[in-house]
Amino acid sequence: KFRELFLNLHVYEQAQIFTSLDSKQRARIYRYLTPDELGDTFDAIEEDPESIVDYFKEMEPDYAAKVITQMYTDNAVDALAFADKKDLPKYLRLMSREKADEIKELLHYEDKTAGAIMATEYVKIVGNQTARSAMHVLKREAEKAETIYYTYVVDDDDRLIGVVTLRDLLISGDDMLIQEIMNDQVMSVKVDEDQEDVAKTIRDYNFLAIPVTDYDDKMIGIITVDDIIDVIDEESAEDYSGLAGVDIEESPDNPIKAAAKRLPWLVTLLFLGMSTASLVSHYEHLVSEASILAVFISSITGTAGNAGTQSLAVAVRRLAYKGDDDKTLFQTIIAEIFTGLVIGIITGMTIMVIVGLWKNNFVLGFVIGLAMMCAIIVANLAGSLIPILMDKIGVDPAVASGPFISTLSDLTSVLIYFNIAKLFLSFIIGN
Amino acid sequence: KFRELFLNLHVYEQAQIFTSLDSKQRARIYRYLTPDELGDTFDAIEEDPESIVDYFKEMEPDYAAKVITQMYTDNAVDALAFADKKDLPKYLRLMSREKADEIKELLHYEDKTAGAIMATEYVKIVGNQTARSAMHVLKREAEKAETIYYTYVVDDDDRLIGVVTLRDLLISGDDMLIQEIMNDQVMSVKVDEDQEDVAKTIRDYNFLAIPVTDYDDKMIGIITVDDIIDVIDEESAEDYSGLAGVDIEESPDNPIKAAAKRLPWLVTLLFLGMSTASLVSHYEHLVSEASILAVFISSITGTAGNAGTQSLAVAVRRLAYKGDDDKTLFQTIIAEIFTGLVIGIITGMTIMVIVGLWKNNFVLGFVIGLAMMCAIIVANLAGSLIPILMDKIGVDPAVASGPFISTLSDLTSVLIYFNIAKLFLSFIIGN
Ligand SMILES: [Mg+2]
Ligand SMILES: [Mg+2]
Ligand SMILES: [Mg+2]
Ligand SMILES: [Mg+2]
Ligand SMILES: [Mg+2]
Ligand SMILES: [Mg+2]
Ligand SMILES: [Mg+2]
Ligand SMILES: [Mg+2]
Ligand SMILES: [Mg+2]
Ligand SMILES: [Mg+2]
Ligand SMILES: [Mg+2]
Ligand SMILES: [Mg+2]
Ligand SMILES: [Mg+2]
Repeated sequence: KFRELFLNLHVYEQAQIFTSLDSKQRARIYRYLTPDELGDTFDAIEEDPESIVDYFKEMEPDYAAKVITQMYTDNAVDALAFADKKDLPKYLRLMSREKADEIKELLHYEDKTAGAIMATEYVKIVGNQTARSAMHVLKREAEKAETIYYTYVVDDDDRLIGVVTLRDLLISGDDMLIQEIMNDQVMSVKVDEDQEDVAKTIRDYNFLAIPVTDYDDKMIGIITVDDIIDVIDEESAEDYSGLAGVDIEESPDNPIKAAAKRLPWLVTLLFLGMSTASLVSHYEHLVSEASILAVFISSITGTAGNAGTQSLAVAVRRLAYKGDDDKTLFQTIIAEIFTGLVIGIITGMTIMVIVGLWKNNFVLGFVIGLAMMCAIIVANLAGSLIPILMDKIGVDPAVASGPFISTLSDLTSVLIYFNIAKLFLSFIIGN
Repeated sequence: KFRELFLNLHVYEQAQIFTSLDSKQRARIYRYLTPDELGDTFDAIEEDPESIVDYFKEMEPDYAAKVITQMYTDNAVDALAFADKKDLPKYLRLMSREKADEIKELLHYEDKTAGAIMATEYVKIVGNQTARSAMHVLKREAEKAETIYYTYVVDDDDRLIGVVTLRDLLISGDDMLIQEIMNDQVMSVKVDEDQEDVAKTIRDYNFLAIPVTDYDDKMIGIITVDDIIDVIDEESAEDYSGLAGVDIEESPDNPIKAAAKRLPWLVTLLFLGMSTASLVSHYEHLVSEASILAVFISSITGTAGNAGTQSLAVAVRRLAYKGDDDKTLFQTIIAEIFTGLVIGIITGMTIMVIVGLWKNNFVLGFVIGLAMMCAIIVANLAGSLIPILMDKIGVDPAVASGPFISTLSDLTSVLIYFNIAKLFLSFIIGN
């Protein structure tokens, strides 16, 4: 009864239910469902892969091996990458040689590359078969292939030479040869390509899947659009986390754990902030002579920090979308300098007028305005230059966070502010 | 020659080339290509819709109408929403009555809803036809449907009652009835559903398309996964822009225009920053008595701002992913208060020790530490509470930007800092 109800649901819903069960209820599921049925459910589990491995441990090894066999290789490998050193060979021994070899192969690929997200369940045909015979292959493979809507054409050496969509196959005559129907300008990605670039290709070309080839141009897998959506989500969460200086993926509900995740970055920045404090300390005599200077510290650091954060966000996103050829980088930096100049002049003049009127001291207004202008230009430059430099030395620019830029900008802003104030000190007090 | 080369390219590449041409070259394209050919290219143009309307204006109205007819309705409508009041009826008059009616219908739907991103080119069949006859329908519609991989089953009133994938159709017997093959638990979205929710459904269920129904449950369109990828990109850019307080979509290269986009928010925050300045001004006598207080303004405001930004990022993302039921909200707020407490205690104690040792003044250290702790707790609360409140009153929480939270946090931090310092002033100076 339950079995029927459960199997009647969409696999996503099955997965949602399964992951909400306790261990006793799960044990019952393992008894009620065949490993093939549960394997389909497991394909749809979106939890972190570690917990999937924990489920495998709850099962009889033979049952687990069968569940893994039924799963698409990409999903199986995602989970098995977290399996214990002793469990993995046990599972592999209990499955077919072919499947075990495929899984072993896929486990080698580096995280976040095409190889790590591809599946090996695709349909391949050869060029000199007819549409009719290709259709037979499709029907035979329909049950286990990740997609049958794209069929890939390979030569005798398994090299990818074309693609036929099921749409093309349907509307062409039964006796036509595949090589006449196929699109021979098939796009593919190399196995070591960054998942982000694969995502861009699929997004731009509106593909449902893309073939993956190895160094010999041999076809070895496909990446489907549903997995690319998860890549896009993951990469955008990464950019977003980078900007905020906090990993927002699976942010824990437990406050201690949440704090533990955020503290390292905050404390690091606190030490950077101490250099700002020691800088102000260095200029403390200025403040005791003109305490009015203390009034505008936070306006100047705050505005420069905000401008720097904007500039950072634009630069990181541009790097992610337009790539990192030197011309683009140079243009970005030049554009940011000028943008900073325009923003600096306008906000500087605004605050000059405000301060001048408020404190009835236009020299002070001029000092604050000039300091703000210079601080903003430096912050904008830092906001665009730092992610670009990080990208150049191979660090993900997303780690240059908003908090980092604004803390750094506090330092440079204070330095600029007090140096300008020092020059005009006699006028500020005298007025 | 060029024509052949051009048409041999993928439509995405055709679109890339087309949009890089100047108006003279484009005029030549309009002569060389039939409107049907160019319509396919236009389906793949990813530029802003306004510029597509500009291309239509360059064409003979009749040619433009034919290009529009060839485009999928969703793409045509995206562009035509920006057409002049006088051009639109002209184009509509020049196309078939049916197409014109569909376009007029789609133009009514509100931006960013299912209706605004759906297309009307889908395949529908009825339950009591055979798989063979359904296959005939598919072959006939294959040329113009957005997808033939899902076929929707409707009753006599056009109400959606099931879905058949082409995979199911292929592996079932030719004489089987559709109602036996179809999945009658078909998922659909209502025409006024937020595009973000549609995207979540497609992402979770790994669909290639989802049907859209109107208020009578009548099927009126489909949304395909390629358009959902664009929605996901758009929504994540929106969240990211929100966090940084700058619209990063199509950030202009021209520094004046870029500055114009960023200035409104910066100047608004500058005024908010002036309240902080006037607050410090209010406590200026404290600073002139103990200029050492000025040294730590930026550390306290900076650290609280960073903590608030982290908290904001987590809250906005949680709102977007877990929805906004009251239980979640309440939990989020409680969790953030405790997280802020833990973070505040640890960073507060850290700076207390640093300042105590550095200035050899542990009362000062205590004041700074206590102020930082309170400032962080308030900033964390603001970072989570403000987006939640905005969401409650129907404002997109993404507009509560990082810069806003850190500017607001500057204000509360300074207030907390000087009030605590005032209490202990005699001890700070005395020591
Ligand atoms: Mg399977
Ligand atoms: Mg993987
Ligand atoms: Mg990456
Ligand atoms: Mg696309
Ligand atoms: Mg997959
Ligand atoms: Mg990235
Ligand atoms: Mg700040
Ligand atoms: Mg068309
Ligand atoms: Mg639209
Ligand atoms: Mg939205
Ligand atoms: Mg998915
Ligand atoms: Mg579309
Ligand atoms: Mg949103």
